[in-house]
Amino acid sequence: MSQHVVVIGAVAAGPKSACRFKRLEPGSRVTMIDKSDVISYGGCGIPYYVSGDVSEAMQLRTTSFHMVRDEKFFKECKDVDTMTMVEATSIDREAKKVYIRDHKTGKDGALDYDKLVIATGAAPRRLNLPGEGLKGVSYVSNPYEAVRIRDEVTKNGASKAVIVGAGFIGLEMAEAFSDMWSIETTVVEIADQLMPRYISSALAHMGQTHMEENGVTFHFEEQVKALEGEDGHVRRVITSKRTIEADVVIISAGVVPNDVLAREAGLACHDRGGILVDEGMRTSDPDIFAAGDCVVVKNQISGSTLYLPMGSMANRQGRVVGTNLAGGDARFEGAVGSWVCKIFESSMAGAGMSLETALMSDYDAMSVLLVQLDRAHFYPTKELMTLELVVDRTTRQILGIQGFGSAGDAMVGRINAVAATLKYRPTVADISNLEMAYSPPFSSAVDILNTLANMADNALAGLNRGVGPDKFRELWNERESGRYFFLDCREAGDANKYMEKHPAHWHNIPQGQIYERLDEIPRDRDVILVCNTGARSYEAQIMLDHKGVRSTNLHGGMAALKKWGGEP
Amino acid sequence: MSQHVVVIGAVAAGPKSACRFKRLEPGSRVTMIDKSDVISYGGCGIPYYVSGDVSEAMQLRTTSFHMVRDEKFFKECKDVDTMTMVEATSIDREAKKVYIRDHKTGKDGALDYDKLVIATGAAPRRLNLPGEGLKGVSYVSNPYEAVRIRDEVTKNGASKAVIVGAGFIGLEMAEAFSDMWSIETTVVEIADQLMPRYISSALAHMGQTHMEENGVTFHFEEQVKALEGEDGHVRRVITSKRTIEADVVIISAGVVPNDVLAREAGLACHDRGGILVDEGMRTSDPDIFAAGDCVVVKNQISGSTLYLPMGSMANRQGRVVGTNLAGGDARFEGAVGSWVCKIFESSMAGAGMSLETALMSDYDAMSVLLVQLDRAHFYPTKELMTLELVVDRTTRQILGIQGFGSAGDAMVGRINAVAATLKYRPTVADISNLEMAYSPPFSSAVDILNTLANMADNALAGLNRGVGPDKFRELWNERESGRYFFLDCREAGDANKYMEKHPAHWHNIPQGQIYERLDEIPRDRDVILVCNTGARSYEAQIMLDHKGVRSTNLHGGMAALKKWGGEP
Repeated sequence: MSQHVVVIGAVAAGPKSACRFKRLEPGSRVTMIDKSDVISYGGCGIPYYVSGDVSEAMQLRTTSFHMVRDEKFFKECKDVDTMTMVEATSIDREAKKVYIRDHKTGKDGALDYDKLVIATGAAPRRLNLPGEGLKGVSYVSNPYEAVRIRDEVTKNGASKAVIVGAGFIGLEMAEAFSDMWSIETTVVEIADQLMPRYISSALAHMGQTHMEENGVTFHFEEQVKALEGEDGHVRRVITSKRTIEADVVIISAGVVPNDVLAREAGLACHDRGGILVDEGMRTSDPDIFAAGDCVVVKNQISGSTLYLPMGSMANRQGRVVGTNLAGGDARFEGAVGSWVCKIFESSMAGAGMSLETALMSDYDAMSVLLVQLDRAHFYPTKELMTLELVVDRTTRQILGIQGFGSAGDAMVGRINAVAATLKYRPTVADISNLEMAYSPPFSSAVDILNTLANMADNALAGLNRGVGPDKFRELWNERESGRYFFLDCREAGDANKYMEKHPAHWHNIPQGQIYERLDEIPRDRDVILVCNTGARSYEAQIMLDHKGVRSTNLHGGMAALKKWGGEP
Repeated sequence: MSQHVVVIGAVAAGPKSACRFKRLEPGSRVTMIDKSDVISYGGCGIPYYVSGDVSEAMQLRTTSFHMVRDEKFFKECKDVDTMTMVEATSIDREAKKVYIRDHKTGKDGALDYDKLVIATGAAPRRLNLPGEGLKGVSYVSNPYEAVRIRDEVTKNGASKAVIVGAGFIGLEMAEAFSDMWSIETTVVEIADQLMPRYISSALAHMGQTHMEENGVTFHFEEQVKALEGEDGHVRRVITSKRTIEADVVIISAGVVPNDVLAREAGLACHDRGGILVDEGMRTSDPDIFAAGDCVVVKNQISGSTLYLPMGSMANRQGRVVGTNLAGGDARFEGAVGSWVCKIFESSMAGAGMSLETALMSDYDAMSVLLVQLDRAHFYPTKELMTLELVVDRTTRQILGIQGFGSAGDAMVGRINAVAATLKYRPTVADISNLEMAYSPPFSSAVDILNTLANMADNALAGLNRGVGPDKFRELWNERESGRYFFLDCREAGDANKYMEKHPAHWHNIPQGQIYERLDEIPRDRDVILVCNTGARSYEAQIMLDHKGVRSTNLHGGMAALKKWGGEP
């Protein structure tokens, strides 16, 4: 049975739906429309075009075999009819018609459909600031804007950039400017940390420190009030606290789903935006599918609603739509929210819930922070990785994992391994025994993920009681109070530097000597144990517990403290 | 309740059991014995010591904070009593005694235990070849032998090495010799490929080609018969087919569990070797635990028995033992068999079953082979990765995954992500939607794992019908028969080189022109479709199917064929 499928939107979910359907039903007809003339592009690649890593903007629109994905490509290679600069203005579900406006000719028309796919994507969250229309201000939402921004730098000599918003795109753009173009780059964020809600303040501070070392300036808890210009070009950003010079301004304050067309057609949408779909990606009208940045999906950890506007989701959902258009029974069960963001020589990544979001979702959540090498410690090339595991105390279920590490694939590999299990609701024991392939060039015999889960196990049992680098720094700042006894339990060679720097406050007893030198430890002060990464301070805590001395240990040790930027 | 725990074996599972138990019960006593005087070493690091990547053998015995894990370390830092050069000769389970012999003093004695841990490890599989006792011949099973072998190269000027066995250790040693020391290195293997049973012949051939390009010679289907020497030093290896000069010989023909002590004590063991344990790592005697290379565990995919002698398993199992010694209820549920092996600038890795082992285990198994970039194709640094997915046709369950890729962490990260899910018995659809964190520097919007599962889905549906590079090469070798029509469906620029080289046999119609040039394709020959990686040849196959023309496409395309070493 030949059918006519109309697809609205031709960036990611749209083309994937169209092409998958055509492969299953080559005899059916597909018409794909898009209001822009640039279609099927990799929007996530925009920061890498701005940075110059990707030399031509056209590369974001080509296949891996160098063909441009334009109307001709979709016709010849995919047998999909594509109309660009054509906008869907309304849907008549009863008559099964999409009303359209052709922006090239100015003419209106209509398309009849048997099945309809809505893949209208998302739009940048508009801040509607005074001065937003000035030249040099951009929401970097499509390849045209990407080209305009890069031209500001390469042709117009922009030398000062302000980024509004410290989420993924904001951080990637900050790197693009300051790494490749040595532009004075400032990030203004209304929250008190970068990647708010995605990672803990401890990990965020590590990312911030790394970016500051690479020349990026951050202003947190600060709101942008207006943009000011000269001769129609932006020159200044006015925030709630200061004025910052700028000749390029990027506004990256998140995105909102384009659900107006669906909403006006009476399709069920979420209160806070986004088209509602079932696991088959069907809307409330069984003849209309929706996929990509315009829909909300199920959070597989909590069962609640998740908005995850990512190209990876759009493509997976598009395939499900294509299969089901052809009468199949494919399912998109939801997502756990995996993400990764490269920042200079480091990266941040995560999956599932951060401690903050878990607590907001009423879980009895806790987290542990671990620093460990990413491969065998005797292997010549290795790097420290910091991971944080979020766990429900009651059920011991893993709720999420986040990390800060090198820019290679080692950390994202760990995040992906945990992400892959999250929908099965693993417990601490499952990650403790998670089977990471072992060989010294790739991992330790006890991989950092296993140790991380063991640490959570020990924390839940009350054996490992510690604080992260942020809390440690607060305790250290109160060192004159005399309430704390800072005990470095490394060998003397490692501790001496700090003993000399802080003779009144820094003490040293190597972990192996604790039992015999127990008399040196005061009983009337809180003992704060420190070592390189937290392993020996945990051992010391066990020994002190055995002797009835209460203590707290620094999770992640001096390694975490250094990355955090808070070395005593 | 204070108890005395005796631990037999002090390499990996033993120390982990001992230390974990002591952390939970600091008031109890642990005595750990080992028949060697070198304990707690990273045996998996030996090839990297031989290669020189690890400069001192002692590094394999130190902690990440540079302390040597010797008797003193275990006493001071772990409060574990350790006796080296002390061998357990028998166990009296009724009297709860271990009889021992002290090889330093020659004296016999006995240790009373409340609980006993057997962590006696494994021994290399002995081939008992004539000439095995010659100098320069080694089973590289401990740090002493590692030092001896490296001395052969650095001090005695060895220049020709023969490795017997092309498993993990054999390949790692082959790399160690030929990469760092430019030694003429030959690997002799009785099977017809490297890593037999672990990977398909297609992937094995890619690994072989890469190692041959790096100067290693392979002889397959060849048995070593004898070793011959001069003045007590090995000089020649005699195989079933030839004589090979050698001044170093490594015998790496697998390992066998050291289960004699347990067997003689009447503990249940597997017919083919290995102590049987329950999920709590208890043997058939509830007061005796066993862990590490001396035990067999459950295969979590098939439910059958698995022997997986790896340091990573030993450490995970040791922690379970330690917890349970202290009255806990920790479990080691089994394993899926993840592995990775670095070979020069590439690596091979896998988890679960290969197609061969799946078929041997009576699964209705099939596999698909995919070549794809490891990150966004527009990102400047990227590499091709080859993955093979093994699937049960009836249940669509994922049985295993194997791969050949670069030496970085990208491929092992994919293998680990799938490995993490295997115990949950995922289906093709689960991997199709597996949520790999997406950002262009780390992955494609549709990650190679997703595409791999989609490919399996299409193969199961009969839509994607193809062959791997090995089978393609067989077809190509029969090109003069006239039975096949080799059709390159890339753009002319990519195909021309082969058209010129093979004018009579290589044909070209770009995929987008197939419908209009259908007349050029003969109906009386099998059409063999070829493109870069298999994506366009699959599209072409769909188009030909639609027009009633039967075809076969080359899985992995020219990219796989090149890596395989079989470019036309």
